[in-house]
Amino acid sequence: MAQPSRLDSVIALAKRRGFVFQSGEIYGGSRSAWDYGPLGVELKENIKRQWWQRFVRGRGDMVGLDSAVILPRKVWEASGHVATFTDPLVECLHCHHRFREDHLVEAFQAKKGRGPEGGMAEIACPNCGTRGEWTEPREFSGMLKTYLGPVESEEGLNFLRPETAQGIFVDFAQVVTTSRMKPPFGIGQVGKAFRNEITPGNFIFRTREFEQMEIEYFVPPASAEEHYEQWIADAVAFYTDLGIDPENLRRFDVPDGERAHYSDATADIEYRFGFAGTEWGELMGVANRTDFDLKNHIEASGQDLRYFDQAANEKYVPYVIEPSFGLTRALMAFLLDSYHEDEAPNAKGGVDKRTVLRLDPRLAPVKAAVLPLSRNEQLSPVARGLADDLRKNWNVDFDDAGAIGRRYRRHDEIGTPFCITVDFDTLEDKAVTVRERDTMGQERVSLDRLQGFLAERLLGA
Amino acid sequence: MAQPSRLDSVIALAKRRGFVFQSGEIYGGSRSAWDYGPLGVELKENIKRQWWQRFVRGRGDMVGLDSAVILPRKVWEASGHVATFTDPLVECLHCHHRFREDHLVEAFQAKKGRGPEGGMAEIACPNCGTRGEWTEPREFSGMLKTYLGPVESEEGLNFLRPETAQGIFVDFAQVVTTSRMKPPFGIGQVGKAFRNEITPGNFIFRTREFEQMEIEYFVPPASAEEHYEQWIADAVAFYTDLGIDPENLRRFDVPDGERAHYSDATADIEYRFGFAGTEWGELMGVANRTDFDLKNHIEASGQDLRYFDQAANEKYVPYVIEPSFGLTRALMAFLLDSYHEDEAPNAKGGVDKRTVLRLDPRLAPVKAAVLPLSRNEQLSPVARGLADDLRKNWNVDFDDAGAIGRRYRRHDEIGTPFCITVDFDTLEDKAVTVRERDTMGQERVSLDRLQGFLAERLLGA
Repeated sequence: MAQPSRLDSVIALAKRRGFVFQSGEIYGGSRSAWDYGPLGVELKENIKRQWWQRFVRGRGDMVGLDSAVILPRKVWEASGHVATFTDPLVECLHCHHRFREDHLVEAFQAKKGRGPEGGMAEIACPNCGTRGEWTEPREFSGMLKTYLGPVESEEGLNFLRPETAQGIFVDFAQVVTTSRMKPPFGIGQVGKAFRNEITPGNFIFRTREFEQMEIEYFVPPASAEEHYEQWIADAVAFYTDLGIDPENLRRFDVPDGERAHYSDATADIEYRFGFAGTEWGELMGVANRTDFDLKNHIEASGQDLRYFDQAANEKYVPYVIEPSFGLTRALMAFLLDSYHEDEAPNAKGGVDKRTVLRLDPRLAPVKAAVLPLSRNEQLSPVARGLADDLRKNWNVDFDDAGAIGRRYRRHDEIGTPFCITVDFDTLEDKAVTVRERDTMGQERVSLDRLQGFLAERLLGA
Repeated sequence: MAQPSRLDSVIALAKRRGFVFQSGEIYGGSRSAWDYGPLGVELKENIKRQWWQRFVRGRGDMVGLDSAVILPRKVWEASGHVATFTDPLVECLHCHHRFREDHLVEAFQAKKGRGPEGGMAEIACPNCGTRGEWTEPREFSGMLKTYLGPVESEEGLNFLRPETAQGIFVDFAQVVTTSRMKPPFGIGQVGKAFRNEITPGNFIFRTREFEQMEIEYFVPPASAEEHYEQWIADAVAFYTDLGIDPENLRRFDVPDGERAHYSDATADIEYRFGFAGTEWGELMGVANRTDFDLKNHIEASGQDLRYFDQAANEKYVPYVIEPSFGLTRALMAFLLDSYHEDEAPNAKGGVDKRTVLRLDPRLAPVKAAVLPLSRNEQLSPVARGLADDLRKNWNVDFDDAGAIGRRYRRHDEIGTPFCITVDFDTLEDKAVTVRERDTMGQERVSLDRLQGFLAERLLGA
């Protein structure tokens, strides 16, 4: 019997505990998007806030932006997306289902351990099983379109952004004017992006609706390479400082011919997701977009978007280094990396298996659980009051259902750093027992010290 | 000569200082959406965090959710949006431009102070001026559609959500199962929504892309009215606790026949935006959606979404009270309400006019500005170091450009609560002068007390 992989276990946990739901499940579900439940939305929000503090608020050379999701066709023509943001699609001549050619080849390779030497003739349709009966590949746009305004016409044709980046380029001159930033400086943005993936899959890894955290960092052309390397290091440090094992990260320099149309150099940071067949997957990318985007927008819009360097008394088009983080992929990596199975003592003096998410306390969706030792008219109101009090600062659960050991397990598996038990002694000594998730060590803490005790351990690192 | 209205002044300030940019301005701009610049994104994020802390993390009866923007047609058929989320459109027979009939009537009323008694015959086309030559009104869907998947067919037809609410209803049963919440309890969500407004306008007030903060609060049917009134009070308190003058808020009970298709009772909370013609505008709404949505989804999906009340041993469909906050409208109200013009002493012993945003410190985009008394090789590095140090906790600006008085003015008009001046004494006494925005009072604070001084004043209230 095959053991479930770590990936299987994490997906099952994410669904069971309400981190991630299938979108529209009551209508049969969709692989286009996933919904983030009560725990998932907190985890996602915490990742976002850490990112924003580290890369935007925390740095003097960065500012933020929130630009629109839907942008007119002109923007996407200028950026090259209308012409080149496409995938080769083949259609099964038998059942008329369409697939991405490159995905069919990858799947073949993953299964057989070798490429299809006979080309598409060797590949069977995943839908109907017919082998080797395919149309020639045709280019298919990866952008979602919609119409704005009262008439459905070319004039109203707009696209949902496939990357947040273009909004930054389009607003570049306005940001420079209003914020008086000088290269090297960057603009950060967090938000939804949409791509019409033909074969969404691997849980939240590849979806049609997803969330990005992007930085466009504008630099004098001569220093682009230096900043490119620095951003790769800074991006990796974001993950490792929040607990990702460096052994599960690797750098992949995307070779010529395989990069996006705008890129002069791209390094993917890959994470060991543990997919069947392909163990590693792209967690994020850092690209040197050169002056490609700004130049194109200058040409298409007729606006002068060059930066005027007062000291040198010259205008130039900055180069752009782009660290592009996938927020939903980051969430998946943090779940996988923090997932552990170990043993915990049980009430009978033996040990039980336990599942624990060793999430960094800054990321944990619930910071502390307040547990009355038993459901009881004396203890429950005190515990509820304490939970309400702690909620002024943190996301805190109150839980009085079941044996205390079971409640510990329940909070271990969602990564709650502290369980706070209110017992009968509490009524006398005004103190509680605080249990730490990873060591399972327990400590008696007086109520008047509790906020400080938690603050020190939750904000730190 | 007409004085610019407060609204005009705020719009000009928002553009000039980078709170709000016109989306796609270099391509001629769009009224569909606005972009939030470096200051706007911080203000918006701060409003969102206050809301999330107050209504989601801070309450034991609430959990959060983040559901997909794009949902399949079935969801919108069940919710009644496909059939009824429409507006009556008329077309000018001369120039063929289309307009919302109700907006034409409103504009007429605002201009003439009376309704068009002769009906549409009295109304001129805003595009070409032709009077009274209109088609009969036709119903036009307010939802944006797009296609997912490799074929553009009915099967792939999806809609961008016109409200975040439906994602909450669709996921209701999954949230109940995984979070073990019991009515009365609520699910909160913040996110983008899209409506194909025919006549977007009034700055960020009416746009096609906007952001909502919504709560669906599930209650036993018998207590719906009580919760409805409570939520109206709680919603108003959110604004007034963050500084909105209660005189600028009013309640409007939407009469029968004018409410949305799902609502049994709706109270709009209106804010005195000061639009030309119509001074008040809808800031948010609280609706009693009854069991309309859950019942429709039960019928359409065939799933049992009733709540099982263990104590009473019975299943029922909860009623839903919906406080629906417009995030972008809230931002506009906070800007307007905090905008003041007063006088400040100048260097010549006289007074100058000053513009100041008296934003609550929790909302202010920049919390403190660090200013070296002059641009100087001794002071600037100390001031920069201090700014970097403070950035670990807050969004802080460093500003050494121009006279100190001018820098104060610059920070007053974006609402920065504290200006911290590093002068030559600082090098000796390790202290700085902290100037408070509203009182303009100055205080000498030692560097080792500064973090605590700011924390007390920035987090409080």
